[in-house]
Amino acid sequence: MIGVFFPEILRNCKRGPQVILPKDIGIILAYSGVGKNSLVVDAGTGSGWLAIALANVAKKVVSYEWREEFAELAEKNAKKAGVLDWLEIKRKNVLEGIDERGADLVTLDLADSDKAVPHAFSALRKGGMVFGYLPHIEQSRRFFEACQQAGFEEAQMVESIMRSYLVRPAGVRPENTGLTHTGYIVFAKKGKP
Amino acid sequence: MIGVFFPEILRNCKRGPQVILPKDIGIILAYSGVGKNSLVVDAGTGSGWLAIALANVAKKVVSYEWREEFAELAEKNAKKAGVLDWLEIKRKNVLEGIDERGADLVTLDLADSDKAVPHAFSALRKGGMVFGYLPHIEQSRRFFEACQQAGFEEAQMVESIMRSYLVRPAGVRPENTGLTHTGYIVFAKKGKP
Amino acid sequence: MIGVFFPEILRNCKRGPQVILPKDIGIILAYSGVGKNSLVVDAGTGSGWLAIALANVAKKVVSYEWREEFAELAEKNAKKAGVLDWLEIKRKNVLEGIDERGADLVTLDLADSDKAVPHAFSALRKGGMVFGYLPHIEQSRRFFEACQQAGFEEAQMVESIMRSYLVRPAGVRPENTGLTHTGYIVFAKKGKP
Amino acid sequence: MIGVFFPEILRNCKRGPQVILPKDIGIILAYSGVGKNSLVVDAGTGSGWLAIALANVAKKVVSYEWREEFAELAEKNAKKAGVLDWLEIKRKNVLEGIDERGADLVTLDLADSDKAVPHAFSALRKGGMVFGYLPHIEQSRRFFEACQQAGFEEAQMVESIMRSYLVRPAGVRPENTGLTHTGYIVFAKKGKP
Repeated sequence: MIGVFFPEILRNCKRGPQVILPKDIGIILAYSGVGKNSLVVDAGTGSGWLAIALANVAKKVVSYEWREEFAELAEKNAKKAGVLDWLEIKRKNVLEGIDERGADLVTLDLADSDKAVPHAFSALRKGGMVFGYLPHIEQSRRFFEACQQAGFEEAQMVESIMRSYLVRPAGVRPENTGLTHTGYIVFAKKGKP
Repeated sequence: MIGVFFPEILRNCKRGPQVILPKDIGIILAYSGVGKNSLVVDAGTGSGWLAIALANVAKKVVSYEWREEFAELAEKNAKKAGVLDWLEIKRKNVLEGIDERGADLVTLDLADSDKAVPHAFSALRKGGMVFGYLPHIEQSRRFFEACQQAGFEEAQMVESIMRSYLVRPAGVRPENTGLTHTGYIVFAKKGKP
Repeated sequence: MIGVFFPEILRNCKRGPQVILPKDIGIILAYSGVGKNSLVVDAGTGSGWLAIALANVAKKVVSYEWREEFAELAEKNAKKAGVLDWLEIKRKNVLEGIDERGADLVTLDLADSDKAVPHAFSALRKGGMVFGYLPHIEQSRRFFEACQQAGFEEAQMVESIMRSYLVRPAGVRPENTGLTHTGYIVFAKKGKP
Repeated sequence: MIGVFFPEILRNCKRGPQVILPKDIGIILAYSGVGKNSLVVDAGTGSGWLAIALANVAKKVVSYEWREEFAELAEKNAKKAGVLDWLEIKRKNVLEGIDERGADLVTLDLADSDKAVPHAFSALRKGGMVFGYLPHIEQSRRFFEACQQAGFEEAQMVESIMRSYLVRPAGVRPENTGLTHTGYIVFAKKGKP
């Protein structure tokens, strides 16, 4: 697709029906401040793109996926990307609860992400953050309100619009057609660190 | 500023006149695939925000800054952010050359960034990437063309527009006023890895 | 406000708390094809900006406003703009019904715009169009669905984002801050003409 | 194309290789305040879409086109749109000069629009406006500077980005792909009216 760029670690990965694109992964990386000391919980794994990008920078990522075929696809992708040492795919539905405690970051991308928000709250350390990736406005609203009800602070809803430019002898201009929407990102913080 | 969010690592940092905001840092993190094994060269350091965000995820960041007052400010900020172990501020003008070799990523944010592009090419490993952060269109064009002339491949120019939404009982809508531009990001790759 | 331009006809008009800006008026003018033979119904008048812009191009505009102070403000503004000959401010709540028939265009900008949609349907000729101007997503959805239920076709929801550029010796770039949202525009057509 | 809507008057018109779309026509209509008393000069005619939209609202539009095949296409389109009574296609290259004086609005959409700016200045009344429609940044800059050099005031450069939303039972969201750029619009005013 015009206007979409993939880093080396994702170039050889297979895509399932819907992956989080680098423009949105970038928001999660930069706004969360996830780094080499971070413990991250991710759900659902899907093709594993977000989990791989997180495992590329974090100390450990545990990604929840109850559908075996996706869990295997993600493991294959993580191996190709060279990040399997830092990524554990856990065969479990995240709506049944998160086992980890003291996480720095929880990322949620599933149909009922708002229902996993209380589990995210339990899993996070103080000052930790939850991020939801949501295609529709109504879901985003439900996720936002679930964050407030679960006790999170500083909830925000944002959208990243990328524009790609053509640089040619005739002049510079944005591409005429391209991607106009992927999803909204809602995030919130568990108290002061 | 409305619609701008800072991660914990940057919250206590002092800002000089112009810093790269998280929305643009996110593009660099996600599009470069920088991670825990990466060697990064950055210039100029300025207040050090980008260098700190990079040191938070990379193995080592060397950031070039010839102005002593900025070098000191960046070191203070890096200490507060807890990433000084992985960040070296080098007192040197990057236009005089880059000492490092085999870098995975070079980031450039200075008035004459296009003049540092050949040095970035020398410093990078095969498959490594250069990113320029540029406020104006004309500079972006010069940087893009400098990448092509230096031998880089897959040059692209993008812009990240963030929208912040208000979620209230009355309904969901974007904020009425806010940030409408920071800079363009031009990036390119040194051959196939 | 930076990035907002007003044509001559609106420059001397007084603004109430909320007016439809030229960027959104432009969508209504261009997408409706309103012209010198058109009969237009507008509600509520408010400060009269949209009504004045419509009276500037249409054969006749009837604008509904039950609040006397706004009706008088709009008449003053219309006189200053020189379009009073083509504009009638009707002291009536549009939710009680629209008297006109065979209208080419109905524009709605009130708190409960969706409740006026069936009246708009009755007032329009075949092929005529209704436009709603709505600040929030949820309202826009209700208006969209009210159009479908009332028998309208080709319902669409759009948003116009304007960017203002600075052109200076240092280079071209968008303004750093500015207007990021006014309202959504939902429109639909009454059958084939 | 997804996300592009055409009013009735343009639906039966044939399109040449490049037409100005309603989103940009709307900016010209609303920002110029063109109305039923206005004299408009337009060049080059091309397929005539902008000239037709202007003739739909103005007293008279004179549109310059030296290529006979386009002049004929535009006349056919204007006839279908029902606006031929108010539109004159003049077989002349606008770079050789504009014959009309006292115009309220001049619109320019040709490869060398900036070279026609001094002619536009001569043709306009005091307070009249010139609008250029320009695909590239560099052309936009040249046009902007030509306006300043010709004696125009209040020069501005803007861009209209339209987003189309899907309203479905699953929720509201922007369309995933669509139009991301058409052209920039630069406009300026000839003194105070």
